Amino acid sequence: MIILGIDPGLATVGWGVIESVRGKVRPLAFGAITTPAHTDVEARLLMIQNDIEELVKKYSPDEMAIEELFFTNNITTGIAVAEARGVILCTAHRLGLKISEYTPLQVKSAVVGYGRAEKRQVIAMVTSLLKLKSPPKPDDTADALAIAICHSQCAASAIGRFYNQR
Amino acid sequence: MIILGIDPGLATVGWGVIESVRGKVRPLAFGAITTPAHTDVEARLLMIQNDIEELVKKYSPDEMAIEELFFTNNITTGIAVAEARGVILCTAHRLGLKISEYTPLQVKSAVVGYGRAEKRQVIAMVTSLLKLKSPPKPDDTADALAIAICHSQCAASAIGRFYNQR
Repeated sequence: MIILGIDPGLATVGWGVIESVRGKVRPLAFGAITTPAHTDVEARLLMIQNDIEELVKKYSPDEMAIEELFFTNNITTGIAVAEARGVILCTAHRLGLKISEYTPLQVKSAVVGYGRAEKRQVIAMVTSLLKLKSPPKPDDTADALAIAICHSQCAASAIGRFYNQR
Repeated sequence: MIILGIDPGLATVGWGVIESVRGKVRPLAFGAITTPAHTDVEARLLMIQNDIEELVKKYSPDEMAIEELFFTNNITTGIAVAEARGVILCTAHRLGLKISEYTPLQVKSAVVGYGRAEKRQVIAMVTSLLKLKSPPKPDDTADALAIAICHSQCAASAIGRFYNQR
């Protein structure tokens, strides 16, 4: 199964494509979509839509895993992230991808084994699990790969449950 | 000029199309896009995208006016509205519409002449200004028409300013 992991945002959308075979993961490609500041929101959203479409055409992922949104203290940033997230969800669904959502706690638990792990621990585990020579940059990309890895584990265990039930 | 007014939401998107000629407005069509509860967000977002596309094809608006988002007490609803709003902004931009955003205060000031007007006053003024036989239903539709009327006034006065500057 090929998984597209997404860390949503308006200025930066982290993305990572991994292949997962029986719980074993390997990286196919990763990076970040960035949109220019001082540009109309609608133009930035369309750039994100176009880039997501291109990624899906290029890597043909079967599924998308994306971070759930929690607002902390910055509501304005939160609205912008949610607007971008809406565009990404809609585009992925239109292109036929199955979508799963994970909380930061689920991602950290899956990747580090501890839900309150620090960001640097997540990045170190992503680098190690995917056998990368150096940590993926920016952090949004590392986060997107972490979300993809989290989904590969959940999907693998779901298949496990499915077989157990038969 | 033909204006598409939008009151964004995930469950209900109010919409209204008006024609504005030298500050005089008349209604062309209005209604609401509704999406079913207990359905994946991505599927509901795609329904909204498809319906917005259909509206734009059917009525060929030149511009879209949409309400700016402010969060009050319900963050979960706020996220869903922002996700839908992102999809609507992106779709309108892709289809070539010029987009303007207004705060509720601006809309109420333009339509009722008082920024803290009550909802029923806004609905009454929309009904009167557009010479409708009865108030548009649901309220989201009345709000969308109010936003379109607000934009027609701002656009008319902007043209006024433009001529004054020459």
